[in-house]
Amino acid sequence: MTYTAPSSNTIDNIISQTKFDDKGLISAIAQAPNGDILMLAWMNADALKETLSTGRICYWSRSRQTLWRKGETSGQQQHLLEARIDCDMDAILLIVDQKGVACHTGRRSCFYHGVTPSGLKDTSQPEISAEELYKKA
Amino acid sequence: MTYTAPSSNTIDNIISQTKFDDKGLISAIAQAPNGDILMLAWMNADALKETLSTGRICYWSRSRQTLWRKGETSGQQQHLLEARIDCDMDAILLIVDQKGVACHTGRRSCFYHGVTPSGLKDTSQPEISAEELYKKA
Repeated sequence: MTYTAPSSNTIDNIISQTKFDDKGLISAIAQAPNGDILMLAWMNADALKETLSTGRICYWSRSRQTLWRKGETSGQQQHLLEARIDCDMDAILLIVDQKGVACHTGRRSCFYHGVTPSGLKDTSQPEISAEELYKKA
Repeated sequence: MTYTAPSSNTIDNIISQTKFDDKGLISAIAQAPNGDILMLAWMNADALKETLSTGRICYWSRSRQTLWRKGETSGQQQHLLEARIDCDMDAILLIVDQKGVACHTGRRSCFYHGVTPSGLKDTSQPEISAEELYKKA
């Protein structure tokens, strides 16, 4: 899989069809080529435009209220292989090449609180410490 | 994979740790066991409780503002195999056994608007017509 960016006009056309919510956001799922779900985050129109233009994943950080070029402080970048928008045009699936781990806890995937009969149990362990992760920038 | 429901108390404890947004919702990703992403939808606390208690997926319909037992009108039910909540406790990944197709357009997955250099192109075709789908209930 290799991602080829559409022209700027084509990207604008895609964005004009996208249904952003009342906060101007769509949901974005990042998935590895092997099917593993890495994380779920958010994009506004600017983040979507930058992502589709450059092929490097850029989200919108709701907590920091700013564009969030994934990996800008940790080095754990995501590069786009394929993008598909859903039937309602309000969510996007990103197949990505993930450098290192996706989760800020040092785990490969953010989805690690497994529901078990005795409550939530971690389904994976950190591959790198948060200290080491944020030292790498 | 077989899902075993926790006790009611354990489910209440999981829900008390879940971070619902200002509309009382979390994002929910439905994934097939082979890794295919089927859809993204929403759950409020009641939908999450019903899903974890019964093992049958129940979302919250934002358009209808009601609990949405997936497949209640189409017969295309989803049954839980595994559930994992993310690091921020505001999104849940559901590995599901999907009866028939997930998308209301009759496609297996809702994510079918592929981004290509010449714009959005369908990456899959309907396996069943909407007419037939909503006649099955």
